[in-house]
Amino acid sequence: MSKYAIVVEYIGTNYAGSQIQPGQRTIQSELEKALSTLIIGGINPPRIKTIFSGRTDAGVHAKGQVVHFMTEEPIVASRFLNSLNGILPKDISVSSIEEVSENFHAQKSGKFRQYQYKIVNRQYRSAWDNHSLLVRNPLNIQRMNKALSYLIGEHDFTSFKSTQATDTAKVCIVYKAECTKNGDEIIFEIIANRFLYNMVRVITGTLLMIEKKDFAPEKMREILESKDRTKAGPTISPDGLTLIKVGYEPYNKIENTNTMEITEK
Amino acid sequence: MSKYAIVVEYIGTNYAGSQIQPGQRTIQSELEKALSTLIIGGINPPRIKTIFSGRTDAGVHAKGQVVHFMTEEPIVASRFLNSLNGILPKDISVSSIEEVSENFHAQKSGKFRQYQYKIVNRQYRSAWDNHSLLVRNPLNIQRMNKALSYLIGEHDFTSFKSTQATDTAKVCIVYKAECTKNGDEIIFEIIANRFLYNMVRVITGTLLMIEKKDFAPEKMREILESKDRTKAGPTISPDGLTLIKVGYEPYNKIENTNTMEITEK
Repeated sequence: MSKYAIVVEYIGTNYAGSQIQPGQRTIQSELEKALSTLIIGGINPPRIKTIFSGRTDAGVHAKGQVVHFMTEEPIVASRFLNSLNGILPKDISVSSIEEVSENFHAQKSGKFRQYQYKIVNRQYRSAWDNHSLLVRNPLNIQRMNKALSYLIGEHDFTSFKSTQATDTAKVCIVYKAECTKNGDEIIFEIIANRFLYNMVRVITGTLLMIEKKDFAPEKMREILESKDRTKAGPTISPDGLTLIKVGYEPYNKIENTNTMEITEK
Repeated sequence: MSKYAIVVEYIGTNYAGSQIQPGQRTIQSELEKALSTLIIGGINPPRIKTIFSGRTDAGVHAKGQVVHFMTEEPIVASRFLNSLNGILPKDISVSSIEEVSENFHAQKSGKFRQYQYKIVNRQYRSAWDNHSLLVRNPLNIQRMNKALSYLIGEHDFTSFKSTQATDTAKVCIVYKAECTKNGDEIIFEIIANRFLYNMVRVITGTLLMIEKKDFAPEKMREILESKDRTKAGPTISPDGLTLIKVGYEPYNKIENTNTMEITEK
């Protein structure tokens, strides 16, 4: 048996999230169908099983989702990627494949995850706006970055976790949480060792609530420390959210480029 | 009567082009419906008639299409734009409105038009590719720009004009024709006083044919001088093509920024 890791890109708009669910169209179900068709030639049932680095909600996108699977069939990378992209739906693609060691695990070996939330900050919507949230009230990047600075480090993120989460995890280490502005486009980037259910969407919703209500940036610290979901802002639309990268080497501020490297270091 | 000019953006994918055609869904028909609803409150038939700076083909997009219309009703810009964008389909929007002098004409007053064609040059398609053409064979920007240099100036562009064009125009002045590369994305930009039917798509198709067949860049001059449509390349997919700007001041290399100014100078 060989183990392979692939980097998967998708527009999540037309899917009920990444994870397989009975009767639903998901990224995982489409991917397993395509892999099984290509590698084994049969999809009833799909016999190639995949492990994702993590679950993304319905409507959330990815540029760097990492997935592993095992097979006994030999794979020639370039031909394989062309064929795989040929049979996947248009809104899912695979940008690379790599054979990995048997102890690699797409989820458990992951050291950090990088997400981006895209906001357009202007008065009118545009036909060209896509996978972003339109915010009409003027946003102040300096204030937003001040508010986000309170999230850096190891904290209990209960305030920013969906009350419907079934697991008990609550502590994460946030390495980076920062907004950058380019014209009327604001990209909120957050990197952490892991994320709780709905965490990026609740943090973004809270950040926008703080700006809208003109609270001091310190409000973010207060909400974090309260460990109370009801103090935080709304779970904002998934459409602006994209999983950019999963890192398998320890997070390093300087070395962390946007290369989609999946080899463990 | 007052005359207004608006800047219209659209994703052309789901439309049979910009121009009204009986029984077809077009940018102009949707825009006239929305304007008539908003200004007059009735759409049967739409009583606000619009003049476009020029026609765009089915599937072609715009970020800076300029359109004028006349009305006796007073218009308050900010409220008007919000309402208009509220009732237009999601893939059409209006970014500005300005009252213009009675001798302004969206088409006849236009001094230049700027188009962009977006190419992605890599081996595999991506779920994130949109409004672009995937080209797998490696493209050489230097060679492409050399080929394009032969188009600059005043020429008879018969070779690059659809044989189905009904008008007799054939001479255009090309001010700029250049490719720029950013990662695996290539933007072909062309600015001319006017364009013939299918001209940008045929020029792009010819440019890609020259690269693919490994012809010398001088092939472009030879094709131009032949004044023979059969010598040029195919009319390439409309999906990569976007009308960026219509200029109402004389074209000036240095001053020409990307502002969407519609006032005549």
